[in-house]
Amino acid sequence: MKLLNCFIKLLPSTPIYAHCDIPCGIYDPHNSQLASQTVLKMVQKIKELDSSASPASGVASPQNDNLNDRNNFVRMVKVKEEHAELCKKEVLILWTDYFKEEHLEKFPDLHTLVWKTTKLCSDNKRVVDEVKAQELVAAVDKIAEIFNQTKK
Amino acid sequence: MKLLNCFIKLLPSTPIYAHCDIPCGIYDPHNSQLASQTVLKMVQKIKELDSSASPASGVASPQNDNLNDRNNFVRMVKVKEEHAELCKKEVLILWTDYFKEEHLEKFPDLHTLVWKTTKLCSDNKRVVDEVKAQELVAAVDKIAEIFNQTKK
Amino acid sequence: MKLLNCFIKLLPSTPIYAHCDIPCGIYDPHNSQLASQTVLKMVQKIKELDSSASPASGVASPQNDNLNDRNNFVRMVKVKEEHAELCKKEVLILWTDYFKEEHLEKFPDLHTLVWKTTKLCSDNKRVVDEVKAQELVAAVDKIAEIFNQTKK
Amino acid sequence: MKLLNCFIKLLPSTPIYAHCDIPCGIYDPHNSQLASQTVLKMVQKIKELDSSASPASGVASPQNDNLNDRNNFVRMVKVKEEHAELCKKEVLILWTDYFKEEHLEKFPDLHTLVWKTTKLCSDNKRVVDEVKAQELVAAVDKIAEIFNQTKK
Amino acid sequence: MKLLNCFIKLLPSTPIYAHCDIPCGIYDPHNSQLASQTVLKMVQKIKELDSSASPASGVASPQNDNLNDRNNFVRMVKVKEEHAELCKKEVLILWTDYFKEEHLEKFPDLHTLVWKTTKLCSDNKRVVDEVKAQELVAAVDKIAEIFNQTKK
Amino acid sequence: MKLLNCFIKLLPSTPIYAHCDIPCGIYDPHNSQLASQTVLKMVQKIKELDSSASPASGVASPQNDNLNDRNNFVRMVKVKEEHAELCKKEVLILWTDYFKEEHLEKFPDLHTLVWKTTKLCSDNKRVVDEVKAQELVAAVDKIAEIFNQTKK
Repeated sequence: MKLLNCFIKLLPSTPIYAHCDIPCGIYDPHNSQLASQTVLKMVQKIKELDSSASPASGVASPQNDNLNDRNNFVRMVKVKEEHAELCKKEVLILWTDYFKEEHLEKFPDLHTLVWKTTKLCSDNKRVVDEVKAQELVAAVDKIAEIFNQTKK
Repeated sequence: MKLLNCFIKLLPSTPIYAHCDIPCGIYDPHNSQLASQTVLKMVQKIKELDSSASPASGVASPQNDNLNDRNNFVRMVKVKEEHAELCKKEVLILWTDYFKEEHLEKFPDLHTLVWKTTKLCSDNKRVVDEVKAQELVAAVDKIAEIFNQTKK
Repeated sequence: MKLLNCFIKLLPSTPIYAHCDIPCGIYDPHNSQLASQTVLKMVQKIKELDSSASPASGVASPQNDNLNDRNNFVRMVKVKEEHAELCKKEVLILWTDYFKEEHLEKFPDLHTLVWKTTKLCSDNKRVVDEVKAQELVAAVDKIAEIFNQTKK
Repeated sequence: MKLLNCFIKLLPSTPIYAHCDIPCGIYDPHNSQLASQTVLKMVQKIKELDSSASPASGVASPQNDNLNDRNNFVRMVKVKEEHAELCKKEVLILWTDYFKEEHLEKFPDLHTLVWKTTKLCSDNKRVVDEVKAQELVAAVDKIAEIFNQTKK
Repeated sequence: MKLLNCFIKLLPSTPIYAHCDIPCGIYDPHNSQLASQTVLKMVQKIKELDSSASPASGVASPQNDNLNDRNNFVRMVKVKEEHAELCKKEVLILWTDYFKEEHLEKFPDLHTLVWKTTKLCSDNKRVVDEVKAQELVAAVDKIAEIFNQTKK
Repeated sequence: MKLLNCFIKLLPSTPIYAHCDIPCGIYDPHNSQLASQTVLKMVQKIKELDSSASPASGVASPQNDNLNDRNNFVRMVKVKEEHAELCKKEVLILWTDYFKEEHLEKFPDLHTLVWKTTKLCSDNKRVVDEVKAQELVAAVDKIAEIFNQTKK
């Protein structure tokens, strides 16, 4: 039940189409961090759902709970996919639109860091793996930290 | 020239498709505020562009600047339109997905406030009017303030 | 077999991007009603599919039917999700763009009715529950009825 | 002023993403007809706007009205474009998803009629021409009429 | 393992929004052929996944592989769906925008061929059937061949 | 007139949503090259349109041609914007999804080349400048050449 209630907060609602063309150089790594944390959250929810639903749990769940669980499995995979994609895009926006030559001189590994982070986004679509999701969160945090240092 | 440089920051770049289904009740009025401020910014930029471009300014601008200005006029109207729409959606997400019965009891005018704010979003698509844009920014700030009080 | 044939009509086909900016005040609750009925239809189809596919039915379905069923389970959850979302948007368009002050005076509960209806849209994403879907259909019909009275 | 007021109804508002996968063969030419009428409406509004704004009208409009007019010119071209596209898609959905062999036997010219109608949609993006828009409305009505005859 | 590695190439990555308005009559059946081949590929991958995952294989796969498999089942159905849709759209773009009267005189069956091909796209959403997918690939190749003959 | 006829080919038609998740490592720089060439084409068309429409041409064009020209100015800026965006996305897909460590060892400047190319995409949204557009085409061709060398 606790789990089901929590779904209320989990529900995809009105999708919004957000251009990142924020005027006057207001860029923000916040959304990329939120997206990576959402991927991690989804991985945890899917595993939680899976263990509760799976016969291996030794608990025969009533047919209907089972149906809701399968409904939400499909939905959570979709949310994971979308946030992994969103995370990739947000990180690429910072890389292509915010970072300038002078930032690269101070952070020569930026190109490599961004590149590897986008590959972690793809990995997290393919698997349901808490370690991989943690790696993504950490990589995005590192980019956010560099961003913040350029703001000082 | 200063103006043109500023466009670099103004450019729409990779559009991102952001679901607001942030897990575990993390909602945030930040994006709706940013969107309303962007509408205001666009109104100011369009007027700035207009006065510099318009023959009324008494300054005959070279043909090519004029062409870039008309290019950016079209683009800024598009950015204004999109952010007015985005602002409407973000405000509606808070209203439909975040606010609960108990919030309504404490803020009985919430329905009316949200409703009028969405109509201000539509007004700001139709006109290029700094006063209307200021009204939108103020209305969204009021919603954000209510949101923050519910968080205390 | 009857079921499978019916899927031919069920198939998502060309998605269309419809702006609701119909000129000269032509608004119409028809699409929101159709969307809510589609949510109900999907809930019924998913349950039908589930009972036919589930081992509980005591009928061992051949591997391949089973594969088509699982293919269509994923697709129907997606259709349910999209129409619950579409229903929410259509209802919000009527609320933000069509209804005016004078309508509110005649229908003081409109804000509350719309608000609860959007929450029913979210509920129907989360569960596969014919009762919840019926509640959504009824709520949307009530809004349509108010709309029609304002047209008299 | 009358014109400006009318824009309130003209405003694009929440764009909705509508799949046409309506269950159990519920198809409807209504949306394609509405879209073609919207294209015509936009052509008329653009011409109205143009004549009022153009210096040829002999009326010097204040700078600001002029700015709102140019704002709405861009927006109306966008609405015209989107509804010409939407009209094309709706017509193609009827053709690919609704019409069956038996309909073709009764209406052997259906393929040609649909094909020419989609080309009229493209024409109406390219020009602002009331005659071309009228031709589109008539062609879509003809398809709707065939649709209705298949329903008898 | 081989299968999993292959998923790296299979992953949906940044979705792109491609208008087909290629200037000066550059049209190309390449994308429609690629899309039909992707549908076939997905059908093969889903069946591969299904046989490896299904208990019928007599191999009890560890819980976690199973979870990744179910994750990718949902994702592959989505990719199949999207490419069947994309294939339909690409074929319709050639039909509505590229082909002219003179092509129809030389290829009187074009209307029928295109129409049947779009119906194959819908069929391949509904089922996971290698024969149906092969039929789609063949139909699209036939259209491409006609296209190429018109280019001679 | 030649110009207007050419618009028939220029028209945006059915927008297609193309995922780049082509299975089994089939990647292709073709679309990014086409997109950059389309940006150049649009710049040329806009300038052509501008010179023909502008009073500076000394040719008073009839009111209606003028209206069609303004209609198409808005549409071409939109097409330029969309293809600059599409070009950026296609290039980023190659960078994030196709290129591997071994490619980077052979082409150590790849990160920098891709980064600068995406900035050229943004530049070409902001200005109508044939030189900038040529630079974009050249940069994308360079990436395509590297891609092709990795295929040998």
